[in-house]
Amino acid sequence: MKNAVVLLSGGVDSTTSAYIAKSSGYGIYALSFDYKQRHRIEIECAKKIARQLEAKQHLIISFDMSSIGGSALTSDIEVPKNRPNKTGEIPVTYVPARNTIFLSFALAWAEVLSIEDIFIGANAIDYSGYPDCRPQYLEAFESMANLATKVAVEGKLRFRINAPLLKLKKSEIIKKGNELGVDFASTWSCYNPISKDGIIYACGVCDSCLFRIEAFKSNDIEDPIRYL
Amino acid sequence: MKNAVVLLSGGVDSTTSAYIAKSSGYGIYALSFDYKQRHRIEIECAKKIARQLEAKQHLIISFDMSSIGGSALTSDIEVPKNRPNKTGEIPVTYVPARNTIFLSFALAWAEVLSIEDIFIGANAIDYSGYPDCRPQYLEAFESMANLATKVAVEGKLRFRINAPLLKLKKSEIIKKGNELGVDFASTWSCYNPISKDGIIYACGVCDSCLFRIEAFKSNDIEDPIRYL
Repeated sequence: MKNAVVLLSGGVDSTTSAYIAKSSGYGIYALSFDYKQRHRIEIECAKKIARQLEAKQHLIISFDMSSIGGSALTSDIEVPKNRPNKTGEIPVTYVPARNTIFLSFALAWAEVLSIEDIFIGANAIDYSGYPDCRPQYLEAFESMANLATKVAVEGKLRFRINAPLLKLKKSEIIKKGNELGVDFASTWSCYNPISKDGIIYACGVCDSCLFRIEAFKSNDIEDPIRYL
Repeated sequence: MKNAVVLLSGGVDSTTSAYIAKSSGYGIYALSFDYKQRHRIEIECAKKIARQLEAKQHLIISFDMSSIGGSALTSDIEVPKNRPNKTGEIPVTYVPARNTIFLSFALAWAEVLSIEDIFIGANAIDYSGYPDCRPQYLEAFESMANLATKVAVEGKLRFRINAPLLKLKKSEIIKKGNELGVDFASTWSCYNPISKDGIIYACGVCDSCLFRIEAFKSNDIEDPIRYL
């Protein structure tokens, strides 16, 4: 059986990407990160999803990106609300080099497991303008990965960065996830979770909530998570 | 004043690379990693060296690479002793994707600090056969880095991976470090430190010790650290 290392944040994109890998016949080695992100609740979602996917292993790696900062997700910079995300500018929710760090750990694990395929839920269409979600970036990472590692240099493995959502609209991702049986109640998208009376709600107004809400609406599917 | 993010393990190579950056006029932002390596004592050395270099900041990032394993430095695989390192094969002390992970964090920090120059003590001559110490790898990382990041995509910064030791022999590195005033007593090279009667000794027989001992000898410089 072929296997894949799958980056799994617990969001809709990485979850759908993991379900695509699963439905393509891959055994799933799920990889999540606790990087002191504002929305660490997503890790609990990732755990649920890894169980639902019957992942062969779910590894959670912890490090402190708040010591580096520079993002609304890892520092006290405010998460933008109700902003029209049509300007083309890269927003403050961008986390410097985050996908590069995530993919680097995925590469390390893939090498140890002798796995060639790495899946990432990167998306370059209805996305937030992040540079590390573009095809040219992912291609450059793949080239680098095949020069970086013992197994690639020895010709034993050739790493592939698979980004099956790269050219899908957010609404198409929800549609695909729905077809594949994703339990959307187990996913988390909100950058700025709000706790009230012991319940954690999605804010409903950050970029990530706005994209999610619109995509569910356009599919005429009810979004099962709680918004404030 | 120009600044650099400098990967500083506490070894002779990264220390000499940091001194080269310092002597070239860079302010030093030193970056070290506690990745549960067998020779974590090197972090204490890195702290001393950062102070000696008057680093503007010394950031230590912690994560657990033993959960990934696959190396004699992060798992219970034994560190080879007295091996003739002439076979050209990549030894078990290779840590999968380690430099890629380290450089990725360096890239994140450099972006936040608006610093273009990253220094790494990689060396492709008298080295241990690690694929992520070769020029083609470092070039590929640099290309990827300039596609990965907001500041590069916006044309504000262009990241450079500087590897000033890349083509030096180990003996030439010691010579250079000596000229620049490196305090070798504050450096650590041994992969397999041995504690005895409350003192930590270098083993003297791992690859890293063998390279170090030979290089000091050929420079006719006394190595001030303790060997078992």
